[in-house]
Amino acid sequence: MEGALRAKIPRLMTRYVYSFADGADAGRELLGGKGAGLAEMTALGIPVPTGFTVSTAACVEYMKNGRELPEGLEEEIDEHLGRLEEATGKRFGDSDDPLLVSVRSGAAVSMPGMMDSILNLGLNDVAAEGLARSTGNARFAYDAYRRLVQMYGEVVDGVDPHRFEDALDERKRARGVSQDVDLSADDLRELVGRFKELYREGTGREFAQDPRAQLERATRAVFDSWNTPRAQVYRRANEIPDDLGTAVNVVQMVFGNKGEDSGTGVCFTRDPSTGEAGIWGEFLVNAQGEDVVAGIRTPEPLDRMSGRLPEAYEQLADTLRRLEEHYREMQDVEFTVEEGQLYILQTRSGKRTAVAALRIAVEMVEEGLISREEAIARIEAAQLDQLLHPMIDPRAEYEAAAKGLNASPGAAKGRVALDADSAEERGKAGEDVILVRRETTPDDIHGLIQARGVLTAHGGMTSHAAVVARGMGKPCVAGCEALSIDLERRVASIGGRELTEEDMITIDGGSGDVILEDVDLVPPQINEDFETILGWADDVRRLKVRANADTPEDAAKAREFGAEGIGLCRTEHMFMAEDRLPHMRAMIMARGEEERRAALSELLPFQQEDFEGIFEAMAGCPVTIRLLDPPLHEFLPPLEEAESPEMAARIRALTEANPMLGTRGCRLGLLFPEIYTMQVQAIIRAALAVEERTGDAPLVEIMHPLVGFAEELRRLRELTLDTASAELEQAEREIEYLVGTMIELPRACVRADEIAAQADFFSFGTNDLTQTTLGFSRDDAEAGFLAHYLENDVLEDNPFATLDQSGVGDLMKLAIERARAVKPEIKLGICGEHGGDPKSVAFCHALGLDYVSCSPYRVPLARLAAAQAALSEAGVTAAAVGG
Amino acid sequence: MEGALRAKIPRLMTRYVYSFADGADAGRELLGGKGAGLAEMTALGIPVPTGFTVSTAACVEYMKNGRELPEGLEEEIDEHLGRLEEATGKRFGDSDDPLLVSVRSGAAVSMPGMMDSILNLGLNDVAAEGLARSTGNARFAYDAYRRLVQMYGEVVDGVDPHRFEDALDERKRARGVSQDVDLSADDLRELVGRFKELYREGTGREFAQDPRAQLERATRAVFDSWNTPRAQVYRRANEIPDDLGTAVNVVQMVFGNKGEDSGTGVCFTRDPSTGEAGIWGEFLVNAQGEDVVAGIRTPEPLDRMSGRLPEAYEQLADTLRRLEEHYREMQDVEFTVEEGQLYILQTRSGKRTAVAALRIAVEMVEEGLISREEAIARIEAAQLDQLLHPMIDPRAEYEAAAKGLNASPGAAKGRVALDADSAEERGKAGEDVILVRRETTPDDIHGLIQARGVLTAHGGMTSHAAVVARGMGKPCVAGCEALSIDLERRVASIGGRELTEEDMITIDGGSGDVILEDVDLVPPQINEDFETILGWADDVRRLKVRANADTPEDAAKAREFGAEGIGLCRTEHMFMAEDRLPHMRAMIMARGEEERRAALSELLPFQQEDFEGIFEAMAGCPVTIRLLDPPLHEFLPPLEEAESPEMAARIRALTEANPMLGTRGCRLGLLFPEIYTMQVQAIIRAALAVEERTGDAPLVEIMHPLVGFAEELRRLRELTLDTASAELEQAEREIEYLVGTMIELPRACVRADEIAAQADFFSFGTNDLTQTTLGFSRDDAEAGFLAHYLENDVLEDNPFATLDQSGVGDLMKLAIERARAVKPEIKLGICGEHGGDPKSVAFCHALGLDYVSCSPYRVPLARLAAAQAALSEAGVTAAAVGG
Repeated sequence: MEGALRAKIPRLMTRYVYSFADGADAGRELLGGKGAGLAEMTALGIPVPTGFTVSTAACVEYMKNGRELPEGLEEEIDEHLGRLEEATGKRFGDSDDPLLVSVRSGAAVSMPGMMDSILNLGLNDVAAEGLARSTGNARFAYDAYRRLVQMYGEVVDGVDPHRFEDALDERKRARGVSQDVDLSADDLRELVGRFKELYREGTGREFAQDPRAQLERATRAVFDSWNTPRAQVYRRANEIPDDLGTAVNVVQMVFGNKGEDSGTGVCFTRDPSTGEAGIWGEFLVNAQGEDVVAGIRTPEPLDRMSGRLPEAYEQLADTLRRLEEHYREMQDVEFTVEEGQLYILQTRSGKRTAVAALRIAVEMVEEGLISREEAIARIEAAQLDQLLHPMIDPRAEYEAAAKGLNASPGAAKGRVALDADSAEERGKAGEDVILVRRETTPDDIHGLIQARGVLTAHGGMTSHAAVVARGMGKPCVAGCEALSIDLERRVASIGGRELTEEDMITIDGGSGDVILEDVDLVPPQINEDFETILGWADDVRRLKVRANADTPEDAAKAREFGAEGIGLCRTEHMFMAEDRLPHMRAMIMARGEEERRAALSELLPFQQEDFEGIFEAMAGCPVTIRLLDPPLHEFLPPLEEAESPEMAARIRALTEANPMLGTRGCRLGLLFPEIYTMQVQAIIRAALAVEERTGDAPLVEIMHPLVGFAEELRRLRELTLDTASAELEQAEREIEYLVGTMIELPRACVRADEIAAQADFFSFGTNDLTQTTLGFSRDDAEAGFLAHYLENDVLEDNPFATLDQSGVGDLMKLAIERARAVKPEIKLGICGEHGGDPKSVAFCHALGLDYVSCSPYRVPLARLAAAQAALSEAGVTAAAVGG
Repeated sequence: MEGALRAKIPRLMTRYVYSFADGADAGRELLGGKGAGLAEMTALGIPVPTGFTVSTAACVEYMKNGRELPEGLEEEIDEHLGRLEEATGKRFGDSDDPLLVSVRSGAAVSMPGMMDSILNLGLNDVAAEGLARSTGNARFAYDAYRRLVQMYGEVVDGVDPHRFEDALDERKRARGVSQDVDLSADDLRELVGRFKELYREGTGREFAQDPRAQLERATRAVFDSWNTPRAQVYRRANEIPDDLGTAVNVVQMVFGNKGEDSGTGVCFTRDPSTGEAGIWGEFLVNAQGEDVVAGIRTPEPLDRMSGRLPEAYEQLADTLRRLEEHYREMQDVEFTVEEGQLYILQTRSGKRTAVAALRIAVEMVEEGLISREEAIARIEAAQLDQLLHPMIDPRAEYEAAAKGLNASPGAAKGRVALDADSAEERGKAGEDVILVRRETTPDDIHGLIQARGVLTAHGGMTSHAAVVARGMGKPCVAGCEALSIDLERRVASIGGRELTEEDMITIDGGSGDVILEDVDLVPPQINEDFETILGWADDVRRLKVRANADTPEDAAKAREFGAEGIGLCRTEHMFMAEDRLPHMRAMIMARGEEERRAALSELLPFQQEDFEGIFEAMAGCPVTIRLLDPPLHEFLPPLEEAESPEMAARIRALTEANPMLGTRGCRLGLLFPEIYTMQVQAIIRAALAVEERTGDAPLVEIMHPLVGFAEELRRLRELTLDTASAELEQAEREIEYLVGTMIELPRACVRADEIAAQADFFSFGTNDLTQTTLGFSRDDAEAGFLAHYLENDVLEDNPFATLDQSGVGDLMKLAIERARAVKPEIKLGICGEHGGDPKSVAFCHALGLDYVSCSPYRVPLARLAAAQAALSEAGVTAAAVGG
């Protein structure tokens, strides 16, 4: 990128400034995303405000020269300002109709921590009067002026913003009003005076009355914001070179409040909620954007504009059509009409609901606007997650009492529980509860586990509650500031209404809505557009997609969602049911191999029955069965509930300091070979029975967990083959099956060559591999230091949700290289939860795995992500649209 | 090896048999170790019995041809048998003085599971009479015959040996005697008849009377033993090719019981206990080796032989001198004199005590027999371990009541504790106890921890007790079969004496001795020879050796043992002392940063004082200080002992499912930066104070534990540098210090490149790296499945004692490559317990580390092992001596 950038700067006669009218070919690297977009629209003949861009090259020089503006830059800016005055017919600082501009940063890649924009630049004591005159609205003019002083003071000169806020509050108190809008033009004029005083106190300087000086200092402030700590951290994390620099856009301000032939609005080229084609938006006659924000007036539906401003409306409709055709994507457009003249202030790819995204993609293909491949590439896999959780019934009528952050998708309802202990107790007793807290801490985990969802008053998308809820797949609305809690009286209050712990609420973690009533929910559902896109996706993906499923019901659900097999069938849940647990416990309590075998023989028919159900549901597809994995103490009650002194002694003996690293997985199989023998017998008998019954032989893959040494697998493979052969011999039948292992320990990755020699397949167990590679106990980390790491940007992503590619992923790469070196035909898959995470699926594609396996509800996401990975490899990605 | 072997076999005229007299150049690959040794001695003119070797090439052909002896082999054997009869003047099956031979296996590498030897081959009904006649000892002749039938039946034909033992016992009962030696010649003659019957019943064949047939079948049996499962497992584990094959040695039997001019004995060229130069041994006139074993007669000191058999003695003395000169190593020699003629039956490098090994090595250098480098190479580092544990005072007089396996080195004494609960209780109360059990299980761990040592009746070197005791560095005598325990009466009995739990015993884990009294112990000590060897070692080693030491006392001890710095100073123990713990707890209980800082400021002077003591003890040497590592709950009491409800809540909140993978190490430093800030302040202040006081500035290395992500270390490095700079600025002084990290997570190895950019040094924490790489919780594994793995050969070595080179070691290699690629000058060390394990030290040398660090008592071992590694690299290894 850097090279490309340098190549674009002529060496001898450097040019730093491009007007929108002549920048169309300068490119994104030099003009930044915003500047390039404005130049592009200008070239298309779309009406945008006049202006110019100070290029990133100027910023680079500025930083190189110890924060000195490069030679010649000021002259170039002066020249472009002159042209701007000429084009607009307005003058900086004019007492009648002054030229005002906004100054906006705009790097090639958008980035947090950068200065956003300063509006109304050019206002001074004289121009404010001029603006009052030209708009006929003195209140608006002085409000704009006081905002400029405040923003400029804060952003350019670092004056404490609270001082301005306090002065505003003081003024409102003095006037006996509570809202900004209740202040009069005179109040605001006086406030400008007070703000200028505060500016002088904070900086030791007068607020600059020279618009040219304002512009120069604002330009420097944009350049300086390139190096804020937050921007630096972001660049480091995203490997963006430090010396790209940012551009500065200087744009003519236009005003929609100059009378009945003016106005302002926001619109979309399609309905962002449903995806329905057709212009959709809102507008206000004789108003500025701030009016909408301040809530003084309610905007009108856009179609009414055709009556009020017919010419501008027609021009707008035409522009929207051209923009969508040009960008071949649904656009989100801001516009202003100043005295009949339409200005497009901004266009960008429009945000939309998952449902809309699907419909738009499908319809654009039908319209011939985009290809199927592009349609697939444009769906955000993560967004589809919304459709795969319970949602509020679309037919339900309700009013949201408050809104918070949409911190973890899905909707949930239940009675209010104000602390974790009561949430746990009531949840365990079978009551549906929503945990409602000021914020959650690791101490609240037990309550979170039992709650249907969580609602907090404080904290953002990476707050403890948000991170933990996403980890658990529970709906969460966080940072709902309308919520307050009085624990002494045990009431919560939301938007003025008090709730006791008897009250029912519903939360929508997809929208952030909090509803103080019992609203109907619908289970996850896939509509026709979704099916269409997924069908297209299946045609292009290379990765197979399987599901993790332990029961015939899950297996059936997985098939429905398009799973092509089971990548992980855990067998331990089969021992937990009421009719099985006593036998399992008898097995664990056995005083020797013989007693153990007796108990196991009771369990065998149950196992066989379960396997038969799963094989039938997955008829003809591969099914990977993992032999018993968890430590045995998980099948015994807690110590206090031991049924006998012997059981208490056994529980004590089985207690481990770190069960995650203890006697589990294949270690159990080597200590008690009779357990795995029973399981293999049950698998083979079930396969024979299903084949006989249905004629469809299941493709059985027997998987040994937690192998670290080839010798472990060599012995267990031998046990498996011996047991299976004996069964088949006795039945006088043949059946195909594979024997393989989970790769879930760093040692297994390192010695994948030796282990591959004993295995027909590997399945990367990235949950445990993440735990061991990073030394993060998931139980402890997600509720503890990991939440802190995510909140404080030590880590970008939760490594249990999105695969840690440079750590865990690098070990996987090593494992694959070493395994394929000795056994090129080895089958490779992944069955950790990462198998359903879109970013991780793309990585698995790049690694060359044969399949991913994930929970049934994530199968559609994985199908889409796998297709996107294949397309991305072929160069088809979501089109980059300026904004 | 295979290639070399094939090259030695002429392709057209294959020769399979070599007489000792013409095999000197055939080499070890073809003749095996034993055959090559006999041929070598023959060539030196040393009197050995006549005989020949059937080469490994014959074995290879045999296996290739589906267990058919190769063509021409029988003819060659016949020819050599003829020559043997000629040379000895005796004939196979002769009724006067028959030729008898032994048949012994002998591969190039000695290996468990192979057939050992069959003696007295050639005996049949006629020859037994002949042997009786020629030795004048019918009892001996028939005892030899019945042993042949038994051994041949068992080894060649797989007859159940218990059947022979039962028949022997029956005969003794019938005769009313208890010892074999009380049976008469007639008894034994009858027993031969009974044994031949048993042979017939077991095989359906008569015992072969033709010596030639006996020899052929014994040869096949040796060949077949190459493929016993145990031998196959051993070869797989040691990467010995399966197609090397074994040789077969056929050696003339000689008899020391042919009259007063005959005899037998065993001798050493130096005293194996003390190392003193001079012949040392025992002999018996008119006796066979079996007489010594059976304990009928007590052997005489060797020097008396000069009076009884002066010519043979002189010849023996001369031979011993020549053997030691030839092999340049202390020899352990078996000899027989038959009618005045000396035969050396075997010579091999003699086993010796650690003290003797050192003296012999030093004196051989003084005698000019070997070089200093060879002396160093020959000391077994592991054996020296004996000298580094408490030992029984050499001046103490005592009698061992029983002997068991020397399972874990060192001596210990204490009162008997018959179960783990009482051992724990009494040990905690301050009593010295020895845990005495039939065997131990994981349930006994709490007792093992509190005992001084452990004694078991059952189990071998890899039994639970042995493995766990070695892990804990506690003395252990295992498998002491003279021990029985009656838990109901709460008494143990050893060799007929009853012990209550009041009785004191002493165990010597180095010798296996069990002594039923209180014997004086001496602390570990290093003698002059040891110092001499270590001095030489220091001259050749490349690796530096540091110690892990947390206190000034440990630091002083480490210096004494030759440590060149501290590689790991843990700071957590400093918070455990009575005067510090309350402040530490206050810090943990603090309700915010301010309270936490207040508690930390109380701890600072203590930390500073500790560091000053350590810096002074290590004057001028580098000291690596690890900042706080363990999870905070380790500083709080158990939940039941919480001092307040708040503390109980905190304990609950800090409880983790897997503390090993939880909130510890640098994660604490990022959650509570003020803790590390305080520690860095204490370190810098201590360094300044010590420099001011002594003029010697310590070389401080500040180490951040458990780093997995470069970003963690980047932030903590910044904190460290900022804190240190502030301290130095305030003191207006300068001091050099490094900032680095432990590498103890697989992710840190994989991303060592990024982490190296933030680090001046790496120290591999192989304890935790082993836990995470293998997924073995040390607490759980060593007492649990790992013991099972070691007992059942799933693993060869305990990976917590000897570094898992192909797993953990491979990750270390990767880390070093990646780190040095970005920072070639980075300092690299190891501070896990492997730093004191000789095999692991050699691996660290090969990895190119700068230093190893281990517990003070292991420093001498590490110095020696480091020298041996350097010598081995230069091609100097302990001389391979046949045996």
